[in-house]
Amino acid sequence: MTIPAQDWQIRAAEKRESILARIPNEWKLAPEDLEKAKRQRDMTGVVRDHLEATEASILATKDASNIVGYIKDGIYSALQVTTAFCKAAAIAHQIGNCLHEIFFDQALERAKALDAHFEETGTVCGPLHGLPISLKDQFHVKGVDTTMGYVGWIGSNLGIKDPKDAHNIESQITAELLSQGAVLYCKTSLPQTLLFGETKNNIIGETLNPHNRNLSCGGSSGGEGALQALGASVLGVGTDIGGSVRIPAAFNGIFSLKPTPERLSYRDVANTNPGQNTYRSTVGFMSTSVAGLELALRATLSTKPWERDPAVVPIPFRQEIFDEYQSRASGDGTASSKPLKLGILWTDRAVGPHPPIIRGLQEVADALTAAGHKVVDWDPPIQAIAKRVHVSFLLADGGHDIHSHLALSGEPLIPDLEEHFQLKPPMDLLEYQDLTLQGLDYEAAYSDYWNSTSQGDGQIVDAVIMPVAPHAAVIPGKYYHTAYTEVINLMNYSAAVVPVTKADKAIDIVPDGDDAYDPLNDVDKRNWEAYDPEIYDGAPVGVQIVARKFEEEKILAIAGIVTACLKRGATQN
Amino acid sequence: MTIPAQDWQIRAAEKRESILARIPNEWKLAPEDLEKAKRQRDMTGVVRDHLEATEASILATKDASNIVGYIKDGIYSALQVTTAFCKAAAIAHQIGNCLHEIFFDQALERAKALDAHFEETGTVCGPLHGLPISLKDQFHVKGVDTTMGYVGWIGSNLGIKDPKDAHNIESQITAELLSQGAVLYCKTSLPQTLLFGETKNNIIGETLNPHNRNLSCGGSSGGEGALQALGASVLGVGTDIGGSVRIPAAFNGIFSLKPTPERLSYRDVANTNPGQNTYRSTVGFMSTSVAGLELALRATLSTKPWERDPAVVPIPFRQEIFDEYQSRASGDGTASSKPLKLGILWTDRAVGPHPPIIRGLQEVADALTAAGHKVVDWDPPIQAIAKRVHVSFLLADGGHDIHSHLALSGEPLIPDLEEHFQLKPPMDLLEYQDLTLQGLDYEAAYSDYWNSTSQGDGQIVDAVIMPVAPHAAVIPGKYYHTAYTEVINLMNYSAAVVPVTKADKAIDIVPDGDDAYDPLNDVDKRNWEAYDPEIYDGAPVGVQIVARKFEEEKILAIAGIVTACLKRGATQN
Repeated sequence: MTIPAQDWQIRAAEKRESILARIPNEWKLAPEDLEKAKRQRDMTGVVRDHLEATEASILATKDASNIVGYIKDGIYSALQVTTAFCKAAAIAHQIGNCLHEIFFDQALERAKALDAHFEETGTVCGPLHGLPISLKDQFHVKGVDTTMGYVGWIGSNLGIKDPKDAHNIESQITAELLSQGAVLYCKTSLPQTLLFGETKNNIIGETLNPHNRNLSCGGSSGGEGALQALGASVLGVGTDIGGSVRIPAAFNGIFSLKPTPERLSYRDVANTNPGQNTYRSTVGFMSTSVAGLELALRATLSTKPWERDPAVVPIPFRQEIFDEYQSRASGDGTASSKPLKLGILWTDRAVGPHPPIIRGLQEVADALTAAGHKVVDWDPPIQAIAKRVHVSFLLADGGHDIHSHLALSGEPLIPDLEEHFQLKPPMDLLEYQDLTLQGLDYEAAYSDYWNSTSQGDGQIVDAVIMPVAPHAAVIPGKYYHTAYTEVINLMNYSAAVVPVTKADKAIDIVPDGDDAYDPLNDVDKRNWEAYDPEIYDGAPVGVQIVARKFEEEKILAIAGIVTACLKRGATQN
Repeated sequence: MTIPAQDWQIRAAEKRESILARIPNEWKLAPEDLEKAKRQRDMTGVVRDHLEATEASILATKDASNIVGYIKDGIYSALQVTTAFCKAAAIAHQIGNCLHEIFFDQALERAKALDAHFEETGTVCGPLHGLPISLKDQFHVKGVDTTMGYVGWIGSNLGIKDPKDAHNIESQITAELLSQGAVLYCKTSLPQTLLFGETKNNIIGETLNPHNRNLSCGGSSGGEGALQALGASVLGVGTDIGGSVRIPAAFNGIFSLKPTPERLSYRDVANTNPGQNTYRSTVGFMSTSVAGLELALRATLSTKPWERDPAVVPIPFRQEIFDEYQSRASGDGTASSKPLKLGILWTDRAVGPHPPIIRGLQEVADALTAAGHKVVDWDPPIQAIAKRVHVSFLLADGGHDIHSHLALSGEPLIPDLEEHFQLKPPMDLLEYQDLTLQGLDYEAAYSDYWNSTSQGDGQIVDAVIMPVAPHAAVIPGKYYHTAYTEVINLMNYSAAVVPVTKADKAIDIVPDGDDAYDPLNDVDKRNWEAYDPEIYDGAPVGVQIVARKFEEEKILAIAGIVTACLKRGATQN
């Protein structure tokens, strides 16, 4: 007996097909190539193998600002660049299942128009002229769905009140990127609800980790991370309310910037439970280079987003802050500039990180120390309090918003979310307001701790290096502890992620005997037991660099310094 | 049969006595002088009559920055200045009942120490050196109660969790003012709950309007307004969640600045229902001059409050913005600078303002036009929506926070608040979150309207002139409509109040016949019927000048320009 397909399953299958149908035939992989790719543990080289030499050369330019430079210098046209990215994305999606929307036609038309302008005037249309940018499927682009992974929103844009707005709405940041010359070509996959550290939904299924198909690409901006790991994007836009740009950045070996909420516009962006405005999701960037993050932040802030979105705080890009920290890069010991003082959070004292993460932290600490910077241990107020408060806000509405989207089509929760996202009565308002106070108290205590670091040498910690998760890219189903990122959202701190190393079964062994790990609690035990050197081998390891609120320029400068120190360290070894 | 006094009544009476007991005998008024003062409709000249010539001369200096200048130039010592202010405040309280706390001893000690420093070093201790500043009774000062008008907090500081902190806690902004050289000498009265446009509580009773004892001094920073109207303070600190620094400023003929929340520190300040953090109360300044507001903003921001209070947005005083708008002051028609474009909100289309307010708006419009600036009508999205959303948040907890404070002593709600503040079940969280979305939608629509004002001349409105209330200083019990201020809080806009004129029974007559006012609704009718030219005669009329979020420097510059235009207009008439 076969179970007849449900209506939502049919709609989801049609949507999946329609995404693939947007890929031109000449970019479709032969079945045997697809088979072969999917048998590989590490798929990050596959896309390159299917590109022409020029295309491969363009895609090998991992620095977004260099790509804009090439177009500006007439080395490549916007059309050449866009074609290469579209083709790469087409292949990436076939092997990596990482896209929700494909609109290469729009992108190629746009590229032609930019080229025509450049030919006519000799000038570019802004700092992003001709640069292909991918977007998480929360951002509205004219003419395109925003399902956010819900079957019920297929053919429309999640969040619109009037059906006539479908395919006519554009997020403010979409308009900003276009106004600065960007080319938009695809939207990337994310998990149902957004509140999950992996990427699975009832439309496209699951997106895995291109570096290691045993593992998840992370979430919620997971498709974005996978697309970049596959070499088919150098700059993308995601969102982060509990780690959603940082986790996939770390898991996929790329960079990210999570600003403080209200630095960038979230206006007209689809979201989960937007009425929960106490702890806000924030728009962030993901890129294959720090330069890409900087380019994106400069370009969007140059449009003065606060003039159109009243939620945005009117702080332009502050060159003086960026320069101040840039000037402290010199690690050769000969410079007169004050060294950076960086904290390192080795463990949150709830769930200890796996060996690859500890080694990653140690490599960063060693590289910084070798470069002359100060590194100190970081021991903030008990993070468990912050985690409890933060997650309470995410669940406070008892899943009502999520279930309203599910109900549109009758689709169920994905099995991973069944435990925590069943429909429940909302939290009592007095409890909600009391939790608000607990959150504010924690934030103040954390800030006081930060200030206390000036004791001794009179120098306050500039930023803190922390794990993004207690593991490298997670084994699907085994993400037990999201506090490393969530706590930073409670404080609304700015954070960047930089890639550090890869898990290595030869080095990252499980300590035993006297060195055996002694778990602190049940969750710690489960997490520890999930570590398997063989399965994790090759998984990227990144760290987050955390600064205080609205310190995006500082964090970008420090991310650049840390990356340079790591590179120098790697060269010397 | 006499009703025996309740315990809370005895405690309140003792507290009232203890405040008066802090006044030195030599500053106590003779019973006949007190009698005489209280028979006067306008008491604003009384304090002066009781001062020595030097004291009167110091107090006549209504510009806070001039007072600091006199001390710096050695014309007066900090002790002379402080003594004059303390004496004035002592008399003001006896006739005006406007203080909750008196700590002249602390103030005089502090002034002596500042003088000693000045004598020794020849330098001042910051931009507020020796300036007496009064504080609304929400700000904690070491050694002093913060009852916030609740009997249950007598002998302690509202909001502390550990009784050991009583009299040891200091609000961050208190510390900032002290660090810049200020002298603190008294805390001013406010209404029970803070959520009331008049000033009454069970400890001190009621504070009336010094300009016209028929009327209220406004609220909630009402004692602050009254103290300044009585000539016993030139700079004070208040708070505003629905109009609480703007209303008493307008009602008492002084100036105020209500910044966007999170520009100044609210850390460790007593408050009503701090767990309602969606629409936040903001610290603001009240002063007898625009220069006083500017001085206070510069001084507090110079301490970088965001380094100690993580809620504060790191925006220093932006001289370039201040200068930009200052440069547009010239109204003589000969300047090359672009004239200002200012909107005027004549009515919110819910409750029409009384004749004195309409005349005040007209005087501002005329003065600006005469000076060469552009004046246009302002017609934003229906304000009733914003008012409904905002007040819902203030009442959402069903009065639980307020009743927890009342319960400490068993005191009842004051009769004025009985209707709206009975203990009720809190709002449902889903409704609360839905209201959040309605508020955000309104804010976006208002911002879009603002941007639309560039149509036609290509110039966007710089700021908007609005009534603060539909009446001059209100007749006690007749404050029916607080939307004029509350709507601005929904948007978190920055706003200043400037005094314009006084109600005049000879001019501000009730139109009749064909010109008779036709009320829009019941509230409008009640408000209109409350207007009585005879009762209102002499009541100050102020307007609020509103700019967008975090535009404090701009609003101060424009407040200065408007004031100068009004002065020029008055001179010419």
